[in-house]
Amino acid sequence: MSKATIKEVAAEAEVSTATVSRVLNESGYVSDEIKERVLEAVAKLNYQPSAIARSLKQDKTYMIGVIVPDISNSYFMGISRGIEDVVGPEGFQLMFCSSDESPDKENRLLQLLQEKRVDAIVLATAGGNDEKVKQLSDSGLPIVLVDRKLESDEAGAGLDLVAEDNEEGACRLTGKLLEDGHVRLGVVNGPARVSTGRERYEGVLKAMREHGLDPKPLVYNGDFSTEDGVLAVRKFLKSDPKPTAIVSLNNRMSLGVLLEIVRSGLKIPDDMAVASFGEVEAGSLLKNPGLYYIDQHPYDMGIKTGELLLKRIRKEETPAEPVFEIFRNEVNRIG
Amino acid sequence: MSKATIKEVAAEAEVSTATVSRVLNESGYVSDEIKERVLEAVAKLNYQPSAIARSLKQDKTYMIGVIVPDISNSYFMGISRGIEDVVGPEGFQLMFCSSDESPDKENRLLQLLQEKRVDAIVLATAGGNDEKVKQLSDSGLPIVLVDRKLESDEAGAGLDLVAEDNEEGACRLTGKLLEDGHVRLGVVNGPARVSTGRERYEGVLKAMREHGLDPKPLVYNGDFSTEDGVLAVRKFLKSDPKPTAIVSLNNRMSLGVLLEIVRSGLKIPDDMAVASFGEVEAGSLLKNPGLYYIDQHPYDMGIKTGELLLKRIRKEETPAEPVFEIFRNEVNRIG
Repeated sequence: MSKATIKEVAAEAEVSTATVSRVLNESGYVSDEIKERVLEAVAKLNYQPSAIARSLKQDKTYMIGVIVPDISNSYFMGISRGIEDVVGPEGFQLMFCSSDESPDKENRLLQLLQEKRVDAIVLATAGGNDEKVKQLSDSGLPIVLVDRKLESDEAGAGLDLVAEDNEEGACRLTGKLLEDGHVRLGVVNGPARVSTGRERYEGVLKAMREHGLDPKPLVYNGDFSTEDGVLAVRKFLKSDPKPTAIVSLNNRMSLGVLLEIVRSGLKIPDDMAVASFGEVEAGSLLKNPGLYYIDQHPYDMGIKTGELLLKRIRKEETPAEPVFEIFRNEVNRIG
Repeated sequence: MSKATIKEVAAEAEVSTATVSRVLNESGYVSDEIKERVLEAVAKLNYQPSAIARSLKQDKTYMIGVIVPDISNSYFMGISRGIEDVVGPEGFQLMFCSSDESPDKENRLLQLLQEKRVDAIVLATAGGNDEKVKQLSDSGLPIVLVDRKLESDEAGAGLDLVAEDNEEGACRLTGKLLEDGHVRLGVVNGPARVSTGRERYEGVLKAMREHGLDPKPLVYNGDFSTEDGVLAVRKFLKSDPKPTAIVSLNNRMSLGVLLEIVRSGLKIPDDMAVASFGEVEAGSLLKNPGLYYIDQHPYDMGIKTGELLLKRIRKEETPAEPVFEIFRNEVNRIG
């Protein structure tokens, strides 16, 4: 089946191609009678306007690139859902890409999205791309950072940011374990190149200092994966003395921590207490695990991100003052 | 910052725009000296070739659209990872879209991907779009169905399919519960518009018939979400007589089933046995749940899908015979 062209549609409707274009883009005046003729011709020839050709003319693709480090983490999908609920009704489509926590892959994705002329980028960075991000932003492409800051405060200073108060949250979370009398902590941390990893770890140390402890916990540096939660517990259980409580600094690693403690035959929290930055839905399968967790609000963060995107794409403020939207979270407990 | 054009690059390098294009697309002969001059001009002017303009000429966008019903389900992300590991090294980029189990949204996404001129589409359909899919396929756009068939066998007959033997798997899974002596089953089913829902339910009925039972289980029709697993258990626990075992026909619903049984204070499997189509990672948090599950191989399915995509995009076979690749899965048990 060969594709109909705009010229064939114009010939069929006996109008100019410019008129066909006006009808399809709903721009400029066209009489109802002409409009009907064009739409009939479009239907008859099964004409598919090319979004690529259209975007070249309109200078808008109605695509927003969303780069997250882990597309299968429900946290980032919660954020994405919030974004979509705001920008979707305005005609924008999200294009998800996963950097898999790799700065190199993220760099390639940033380049690709620029080449695809997306209208804006949402970035939860895997780190290592300050310069590239700054360059894209300086070229006029709106970029909203979500969840994670750039590595240098200077590079991120001009960019919108929707994130959590990670240090404060991790400090309060750790405080709960310390109030329960734990003094030997194991910390399952994310990579130091990622701001959430750095800030949450700082929060743990702060809590220890506030409780008069020497801030030298056992540390396992993971990459936010379930697998690394498992490996962290294996490492901690081989140490002497063992920690009596584990602070795990993201939800995926926390699931791995829980799975491996249970697999080792230890009881939570009697043999090993656990605190998690981020809720672990499956934690309720355990009987009275006394599991502390910071509840997060990814959907609300997504809503805020979506609003910022629309504002930036529509250039509602020029020059734009960057917005820093920081969410504060509470400590909760399961069982 | 205004963007450099290919004309400015050509002027700077003192060559024609065609030569610049040849260098950038690595097509046709250009002497090393000229090539160097062009690349220097590109660097000096910070020229960014437009992928949109390029794709208009090359008739290839190197983008593959992947429409899944639930982007946060690790099963579909496992498939996507497999696809990416095959097509990524060949220069293709995946664009993920989530239909959220909505046929309407899926229809819009199919339209959008066609307009974006993706080179191929991978579809795990939410149902209801047989005609649209057929139309896109007939227009020459390669479409590979994954996990789920179209509603009518006729519409799907000409399309590649990578799926599981759902009926056989569900039959064997249910058989395990029946061999353990259960006769009153509750079935948490997916939507009937989705082939995996229909086929797995058929498998349950087949197993009941093979064991001489009247194939009339209690049924809850969910939409493959964790929430629906929770609601199904609530419904079953209100029925009289209650089922003694639950067959849950996807991994997300199974997590909800486990959570709600535990929340009700019942013991698994003594008070209520559970069998799941698809592994529930968190199931290991339970003590000896005797949880039967069908193990799935989404990554391998993704690898196969990726290979088919490359073959179709490169038109290695014309006319193409559709490939039906059906994966068979084993029943396993936790605890």
